[in-house]
Amino acid sequence: MAGISPQSPILANQGASSSSSSTNIPLAPPDKQPPNLHIPKKAEKTIGWAIVGLGELALAEIMPAFAECQLSKPVALVSGHPDKARKVAALHGIAEDAIYNYDNYDKLAADNRVDAIYIVLPNSMHAEFTIRGLKAGKHVLCEKPMSATVAEAEQMIAAAKAADKKLMIAYRLHYEPFNQKAMELCKSGALGKIKTFVSTNAQNVKAPNIRLSGELAGGPVGDVGVYSINAARYTLGEEPVEVFATAHQPKDDPRFREVPESVTFILRYPSGALAHCDCSFGTSESRFFRVLGTEGYLRMDPAFSYRGLRLHMKEGDAKSGDAEVKELVLQPVNHFAAEMDHFSSVILNGDKCLTPGEMGLADMKIVEAIEKSWKTNEPVKLS
Amino acid sequence: MAGISPQSPILANQGASSSSSSTNIPLAPPDKQPPNLHIPKKAEKTIGWAIVGLGELALAEIMPAFAECQLSKPVALVSGHPDKARKVAALHGIAEDAIYNYDNYDKLAADNRVDAIYIVLPNSMHAEFTIRGLKAGKHVLCEKPMSATVAEAEQMIAAAKAADKKLMIAYRLHYEPFNQKAMELCKSGALGKIKTFVSTNAQNVKAPNIRLSGELAGGPVGDVGVYSINAARYTLGEEPVEVFATAHQPKDDPRFREVPESVTFILRYPSGALAHCDCSFGTSESRFFRVLGTEGYLRMDPAFSYRGLRLHMKEGDAKSGDAEVKELVLQPVNHFAAEMDHFSSVILNGDKCLTPGEMGLADMKIVEAIEKSWKTNEPVKLS
Amino acid sequence: MAGISPQSPILANQGASSSSSSTNIPLAPPDKQPPNLHIPKKAEKTIGWAIVGLGELALAEIMPAFAECQLSKPVALVSGHPDKARKVAALHGIAEDAIYNYDNYDKLAADNRVDAIYIVLPNSMHAEFTIRGLKAGKHVLCEKPMSATVAEAEQMIAAAKAADKKLMIAYRLHYEPFNQKAMELCKSGALGKIKTFVSTNAQNVKAPNIRLSGELAGGPVGDVGVYSINAARYTLGEEPVEVFATAHQPKDDPRFREVPESVTFILRYPSGALAHCDCSFGTSESRFFRVLGTEGYLRMDPAFSYRGLRLHMKEGDAKSGDAEVKELVLQPVNHFAAEMDHFSSVILNGDKCLTPGEMGLADMKIVEAIEKSWKTNEPVKLS
Amino acid sequence: MAGISPQSPILANQGASSSSSSTNIPLAPPDKQPPNLHIPKKAEKTIGWAIVGLGELALAEIMPAFAECQLSKPVALVSGHPDKARKVAALHGIAEDAIYNYDNYDKLAADNRVDAIYIVLPNSMHAEFTIRGLKAGKHVLCEKPMSATVAEAEQMIAAAKAADKKLMIAYRLHYEPFNQKAMELCKSGALGKIKTFVSTNAQNVKAPNIRLSGELAGGPVGDVGVYSINAARYTLGEEPVEVFATAHQPKDDPRFREVPESVTFILRYPSGALAHCDCSFGTSESRFFRVLGTEGYLRMDPAFSYRGLRLHMKEGDAKSGDAEVKELVLQPVNHFAAEMDHFSSVILNGDKCLTPGEMGLADMKIVEAIEKSWKTNEPVKLS
Repeated sequence: MAGISPQSPILANQGASSSSSSTNIPLAPPDKQPPNLHIPKKAEKTIGWAIVGLGELALAEIMPAFAECQLSKPVALVSGHPDKARKVAALHGIAEDAIYNYDNYDKLAADNRVDAIYIVLPNSMHAEFTIRGLKAGKHVLCEKPMSATVAEAEQMIAAAKAADKKLMIAYRLHYEPFNQKAMELCKSGALGKIKTFVSTNAQNVKAPNIRLSGELAGGPVGDVGVYSINAARYTLGEEPVEVFATAHQPKDDPRFREVPESVTFILRYPSGALAHCDCSFGTSESRFFRVLGTEGYLRMDPAFSYRGLRLHMKEGDAKSGDAEVKELVLQPVNHFAAEMDHFSSVILNGDKCLTPGEMGLADMKIVEAIEKSWKTNEPVKLS
Repeated sequence: MAGISPQSPILANQGASSSSSSTNIPLAPPDKQPPNLHIPKKAEKTIGWAIVGLGELALAEIMPAFAECQLSKPVALVSGHPDKARKVAALHGIAEDAIYNYDNYDKLAADNRVDAIYIVLPNSMHAEFTIRGLKAGKHVLCEKPMSATVAEAEQMIAAAKAADKKLMIAYRLHYEPFNQKAMELCKSGALGKIKTFVSTNAQNVKAPNIRLSGELAGGPVGDVGVYSINAARYTLGEEPVEVFATAHQPKDDPRFREVPESVTFILRYPSGALAHCDCSFGTSESRFFRVLGTEGYLRMDPAFSYRGLRLHMKEGDAKSGDAEVKELVLQPVNHFAAEMDHFSSVILNGDKCLTPGEMGLADMKIVEAIEKSWKTNEPVKLS
Repeated sequence: MAGISPQSPILANQGASSSSSSTNIPLAPPDKQPPNLHIPKKAEKTIGWAIVGLGELALAEIMPAFAECQLSKPVALVSGHPDKARKVAALHGIAEDAIYNYDNYDKLAADNRVDAIYIVLPNSMHAEFTIRGLKAGKHVLCEKPMSATVAEAEQMIAAAKAADKKLMIAYRLHYEPFNQKAMELCKSGALGKIKTFVSTNAQNVKAPNIRLSGELAGGPVGDVGVYSINAARYTLGEEPVEVFATAHQPKDDPRFREVPESVTFILRYPSGALAHCDCSFGTSESRFFRVLGTEGYLRMDPAFSYRGLRLHMKEGDAKSGDAEVKELVLQPVNHFAAEMDHFSSVILNGDKCLTPGEMGLADMKIVEAIEKSWKTNEPVKLS
Repeated sequence: MAGISPQSPILANQGASSSSSSTNIPLAPPDKQPPNLHIPKKAEKTIGWAIVGLGELALAEIMPAFAECQLSKPVALVSGHPDKARKVAALHGIAEDAIYNYDNYDKLAADNRVDAIYIVLPNSMHAEFTIRGLKAGKHVLCEKPMSATVAEAEQMIAAAKAADKKLMIAYRLHYEPFNQKAMELCKSGALGKIKTFVSTNAQNVKAPNIRLSGELAGGPVGDVGVYSINAARYTLGEEPVEVFATAHQPKDDPRFREVPESVTFILRYPSGALAHCDCSFGTSESRFFRVLGTEGYLRMDPAFSYRGLRLHMKEGDAKSGDAEVKELVLQPVNHFAAEMDHFSSVILNGDKCLTPGEMGLADMKIVEAIEKSWKTNEPVKLS
């Protein structure tokens, strides 16, 4: 190594980098490393977040996602289990005096470290903790489904207005590139006129699990079906006017004493577009959606998952018996990091929130109509 | 929301979680959230790392990967550009006094924050900085290819022995699940007896780029071809005994004044297995390998990339005209985080290092033999 | 070539044969070619077929399929266009005196060359020509949908009984390996308990086309939707008890004056299984079905097409975050040849017909219920 | 059915037709079926074929393929097994007096039913029977590899010139749409400049099998490797100038007493393009090729098979980290029918033969050079 001076140029070995990241690097003169590589700036101001509810989603996905955020930092925890909260705080560098419980939650109002609250509680608790958070003067990101009822959703929106704070619903798929590409392709006319949306979001839920509780969680439509409802909106670009649904609630499976196992529903849209979807807590994991237009179709399969989304598009309709089915290979991102940084940017920079409370309310109206339909076995109109 | 007490059970909304992560959660009693969710423990001791060389790979991949590490923490930087180093240090919470340059690099010996050094310099600098790091009493993880020459690789191994420190080569694919599954399937006999390995690792490198420098980087075989060489080893499970290679170095492309554009090589193994591979700096990105056995084949396509690996396996050979081609869908991990935590665990827990200097040396012998072969247009034996 | 005697062994060059077909061939002694290769036997008796209706399906698919049949031979044509019929007869070696028209069709009774009749007429004509064919003493294979109404279907079955002749409906997918494999996997329990069926069968139909005629063809449910209805039966293994459907019939598209563009429907089954499907004459070609069980899912995509079917199966539910998605690679067959030979074998050998008139009737009941449902916007029970 | 007149329009039920075939059909008036559907014309003149050699390929693929030919008809057989030949003749409607053996083969000269001869004999017999066939005044289609030696290939071409008859080699992939599309994409520049070709053609051959005979068949390079050699030509568009090859011939496997199990070879081209390929008789069936250009790549996987080819193309190189991988979905054809009809059209219409003897000769030169290389362990130049 004698001939190699320590002042030699340095540049990372780029063996398997994508060529994109390795191609624009100027060859350094032998005594300097390239000075001008892109370094993400440390944000001047980041948003401090309080995470409310330390269940599996918070622990396995949301807390680790902060590591990939540019604008968001976890600074407080709210939990009913002080021991657990302390462990999580230690792991993520959160001060012990920033651990709250459900009783003293409102004291967040006086905690200046906290700008935003992320509600990761059971669905039945979304409304209360959102409203209390807004009253405490914080911006609130609330997990989906927004609430247990339409009425609650309306109260939450009203509370945000009263407090003059932002309210966002955690529709993370609006912030990741595969679904963004699907939205863009549908909107652009690449599929012609959109006619049909088909979707499944199903998984096996083992008891005991709070998601099997009617009171606390509300069943598969709000929990997993809402992904299909929301994806139908962001691909079709309109609101449904009528709903019909059928449910199956097996009497011989103790998991389904309170909520249906599976619900299948049809949505009718003003343009004449139709959607048909199912959601289930009783089948092997299966998640996809498909959008049919006059000139092609999109298939996201798997869809809705945290990772591993895949997007195909068919074009070139078989005039000659031939067609092209493209896989669109995109760089994945951490959905939760992208979602949280969006909300931080809304707060910091006044960006328009892409998934506000009003979107959650629109979905809740559909969720309620679906429930009414399968209970009455009749179609239900949406206003 | 009046009916919902703040002591209500809480559990994360699991809408799109994989069923694996959502199924074993006990239903909490109504006044408690589940106390027993798995929280990764904060490691009692973590390994402090110095990153040497702040090129693209370090900035875009390695520094961010620390956020996903359990056992590894960045505590020092070594760079020829103090301004850049300061920005990176600020972004990652590294103390200003832990910034070194190539001259005072040896002072790391006295910096107790630093346990391990990651060499991310141009290939030609690997040996010097590895040896200086070992002499400073630190463990060293060195990027591949290990060195510019076999002789350097041997000096590096000797230096590690003399210093009684660990030396690991950054073959990150040994630490991620897709390649681990491929290794396991090959070893288990699932493909029968392994006979043939085929691979491409190619990309377009735009000038100016240090990778196009013969002296500093050494050309495509060490840079990208080494992935194929290494993957042949971990799937075939043996060392080649003879090599033949052909190169193309276009005279009309100024990028390839010093290094070949493409090199194609055949490796022959003691069992009779054969490998044939190409590597290139002059084609659209293409990365795959394929392993043929008597009873089936594996295809990793894309292979070698940081993200987006896909693994298929064919079985059931067409007795009836039918076959099964399985896609093995695995949870991806951050390759660099897994690699660094492995080395930290080797240091902390005395685990056996899976990709030691000796593996890098074995690859360097093949790299050198390939170079000799294409230069002489003759097969070259390996001892 | 002097050294090569004409008595040398001969064996076909098998360069790219599947190994299945090339592996059991005994090596011949040098003066003999292998005498014992499998030669399909010329059937002692083949069934003579009359094709009724020389539209696109007959000309492009059915007539050419006879070349791949072992037991079936085209011997007569029935058409309203004598010129066209003569051309087709000449192309396929059918005697000129075996050309009939719709008036003298009943004279087939006296034509001993004809054993079986294939009805390839507009849907509205299926019943009449099936019944006349049965009365003429011939066995009848009728295209799907079996008829325009349930009442017609019942008359057809009664006519077959009265004539003591076989009546089969042309559900070709029961006779090809991809759908047979799907049936087998569903029945075997490989997916666990089957819960949900999802399907699309949609295409763009350009005017003018008889398929856009309400009276003659009946619209997309009988035409393309019946594939989904039938596939739900052969994967779920039961009959639906209730139906709900929604249709879209755009007022501004002259193609859809008589029939809806798209119909979406939900089927409910006694076990609690649910199916949701759409069919359309107004979108880019899209055909798939998906069957969700408690332990895995099947995806046929594309489904229903004459060629190019692809079948995937997911197993191994993500306990560890991993799963396997298998593509089942099967040898395709000509659907129409397999279907016709099945019927010939039913006639010759007394095999049980797998898709008898009763299956067609069962589907027609569902087709009618779907129509009633979208017209009344109410769910319709099936007895 | 009273209301349905027999004069009603008829049109095939098009349930699952591709929209291409169903969209341009004029709606018939109610008393007429559409008179103007496309009916393939019975060719005025067809070419009568003699098939020489009734091994597996002839029986399982070539004889059945005639059913899908427009211009080609089997009219004679040449076989060493009169019993077998009679059975095959009966099955395919060939006259008994058109059965020949290897001794009286030359009497074909007087058989006016025969225009063309298809040589489907062991490779070692190709030259003799091709030359005798040409001398008998017939056009000859000869299976690949063209011959056992370059010298033989040259004699065959000379014989065709002397007889003023056509000589074609049975490179069936030139006549089917997937490989034609690959050729077109490579030629069009869609991949940029072509740089690298990679291919495997491997299968398990069970003993006893004539393909394992050195004298009669010649080993895997001519048998399966020639597919890769030929595909490299039709994608790269040039002839190689140098070859290096390595073989493995296991001593402990009695199948490989006469021929190698596997051969791996590198081809170098004037443009600097490189190909590396393997062929084997000892691994599970695996067939693919991949063509790398400066702007994208093509992947045919599986390649070379009679059925089930799949073609993907990658474009859009990852500037943004994104890429598109298209599957090009084409309508498959019967390779042998397309190949035979091409030759019939060459004979009937004077079309230019796309795979003449000269192409076979060019491949034989490469096959011989590969054999010389692995035997000498040295690179071999091609003139």
